[in-house]
Amino acid sequence: MEHRIQNLSTWLKEQDIQLGFITSTENVFYLTNFHCNPHERLLAVLVFPNEEPILVCPQMEVGHVKHAGWKYDVIGFNDSQDPWAMIQESLAKRNITVSRMAIEKEHLLVQRYEKLLQLFPGVQFLAAEEKLHDLRLIKDQEEIRRMQAAADAADMACQIIVDRIAEGKTEMDLIAEMEYEMKKKGFAKTSFSTLILTGANSALPHGNPGTNAIKKGEFVLMDLGFIVDGYCSDITRTVMFGEPNEQQREIYETVLKGQLAAIDVSKPGETLGNVDRAARNIIADAGYGEYFVHRIGHGLGIGIHDYPSVNDSNTGIIKTGMSYTIEPGIYVPNVGGVRIEDDIVITETGALTLTKFPKDLIIL
Amino acid sequence: MEHRIQNLSTWLKEQDIQLGFITSTENVFYLTNFHCNPHERLLAVLVFPNEEPILVCPQMEVGHVKHAGWKYDVIGFNDSQDPWAMIQESLAKRNITVSRMAIEKEHLLVQRYEKLLQLFPGVQFLAAEEKLHDLRLIKDQEEIRRMQAAADAADMACQIIVDRIAEGKTEMDLIAEMEYEMKKKGFAKTSFSTLILTGANSALPHGNPGTNAIKKGEFVLMDLGFIVDGYCSDITRTVMFGEPNEQQREIYETVLKGQLAAIDVSKPGETLGNVDRAARNIIADAGYGEYFVHRIGHGLGIGIHDYPSVNDSNTGIIKTGMSYTIEPGIYVPNVGGVRIEDDIVITETGALTLTKFPKDLIIL
Repeated sequence: MEHRIQNLSTWLKEQDIQLGFITSTENVFYLTNFHCNPHERLLAVLVFPNEEPILVCPQMEVGHVKHAGWKYDVIGFNDSQDPWAMIQESLAKRNITVSRMAIEKEHLLVQRYEKLLQLFPGVQFLAAEEKLHDLRLIKDQEEIRRMQAAADAADMACQIIVDRIAEGKTEMDLIAEMEYEMKKKGFAKTSFSTLILTGANSALPHGNPGTNAIKKGEFVLMDLGFIVDGYCSDITRTVMFGEPNEQQREIYETVLKGQLAAIDVSKPGETLGNVDRAARNIIADAGYGEYFVHRIGHGLGIGIHDYPSVNDSNTGIIKTGMSYTIEPGIYVPNVGGVRIEDDIVITETGALTLTKFPKDLIIL
Repeated sequence: MEHRIQNLSTWLKEQDIQLGFITSTENVFYLTNFHCNPHERLLAVLVFPNEEPILVCPQMEVGHVKHAGWKYDVIGFNDSQDPWAMIQESLAKRNITVSRMAIEKEHLLVQRYEKLLQLFPGVQFLAAEEKLHDLRLIKDQEEIRRMQAAADAADMACQIIVDRIAEGKTEMDLIAEMEYEMKKKGFAKTSFSTLILTGANSALPHGNPGTNAIKKGEFVLMDLGFIVDGYCSDITRTVMFGEPNEQQREIYETVLKGQLAAIDVSKPGETLGNVDRAARNIIADAGYGEYFVHRIGHGLGIGIHDYPSVNDSNTGIIKTGMSYTIEPGIYVPNVGGVRIEDDIVITETGALTLTKFPKDLIIL
């Protein structure tokens, strides 16, 4: 991880910033390999242009920090200590004065922002994301390895669900069975709450799974992901329980055609907006435009909704090493919904698809 | 929920604040009964001193909003729309000007704070938590009913684990089996990642469950909770697999004695600091003071770490309707750890304990 800290230090130096105050679980993990959800307690990596970094965390996490490989100073505080005063003291010891500070404006809370203003009166705040987004946007080989492992787990989970779909089983039954099997295999952390939606419920893009029993002639939509070594996967597949009718088949084929077109457009040099439009145009041409109600995808990595946002107004250019989901959907109220989602990484020649579970319509 | 919005409106009027801009999932749920994790998208309830409120959420959530019982205006935006512009337009239509605004300083991100500053130049920000903490701190009967249901689920989960502990099973095995059984019963949402820690692993207050197999003569520590109707439970029990040795028995009895003392002190009029000290003194007197490395508890409700914080420096007074955990622990490195945790609600006569799973040392 040390080259990541080094990259940030170099940027701080270039920008004449004396302190990078990094507080999100995700960016702390990215920089330190230490993963910690501190709840309302403070977690921070202090990064400097010319000095070794300092990690600030609850005292009871200090053992984990060292275990994660951290070799620099740690400020551990217990619940009756004031970590802010400890930080101030530590900077004073190093004779560090701060007039420009980089913070995560997309993560730091106003309360802490005001605290920093008290500690460093007159300080000028800059967005650390300006650099951190760039760093995290382009995945290195180790990150792609972890993402592939997370995608493999997602594929495995789809197979478990497909093997267990049966008349009378409910959405929650299938989730319970899949997650149980996955935990037994050592995959305990999902990227988000698993969705299995059937029948009319599948027409709610973010519906809640419940005790709906699966019935013949309905779609079963599954949207799930796992976190492996700190990196997320996110897959959606929709299968038919029983024979599809004509409309169901048309909806499915339209989504799949759109999804494949969007993958095809995903190449270095293209714009992200074109990825969205590639699928959106196909879906609109088939007459289902009004039923595709969300962007086509989102970045993926340590976070489940990372940069870039893949929507039709994003004029950003696709670069090698970017990773994002491609997940068009058609949701017809009271009829049913289909979404097909893969995770891709951009290579020099185009999209490498990490999730590999079959996409031809599975009829059970 | 309408009386909750009304309470906030009244406070805004008293404070001469023209807009309450409430954005956290938890407080939006508290005020609207609509539960939504919008990820990086905007979610907000706009509360006014003299007007009906407005809810702002992603377009695909609008159906859920209505289903949750919301009767007022909704601004639904899709991924290519700018919700900030839509808010501005909506306030202009109502002829509302804002010079003082209440925001959640413990939740709002700096980026959105800067956005609000752009939209409302010169606006003065106040902390909405000042009122929301007070409101949420004191649970009403409906809230206590939901918390009791969540606590009942936690008790049930402890029994499932105890019934399944056996030689050779791993921490992850037990988590998988318990969560599977609970999902089948309809309890799918845990309050946090279930912890089952055995042997030396149990000495890490926030250790990670893994593939450690349970061995005779070791503690098995389980820390878990479920969310029912939006409210959390949080229980910890520690059981022995095989006969305890003298030190294990002493550690267990010391923690239990401390925990019971802390429950006993939990009465209206006492200070929260005394609750912590009641257990801490007993543990220190037994010679284990240095191994009780965290505060005794935290508030509980919609959030798993709500107000109040129950630590020895909190001079706040306990009031009827407060709810918090009582969870002392002793963690002896390389030996093992014991924590015993209950959820309580303060009544006029003292603590009502919601979690009821037995606390006398269970030897399996």
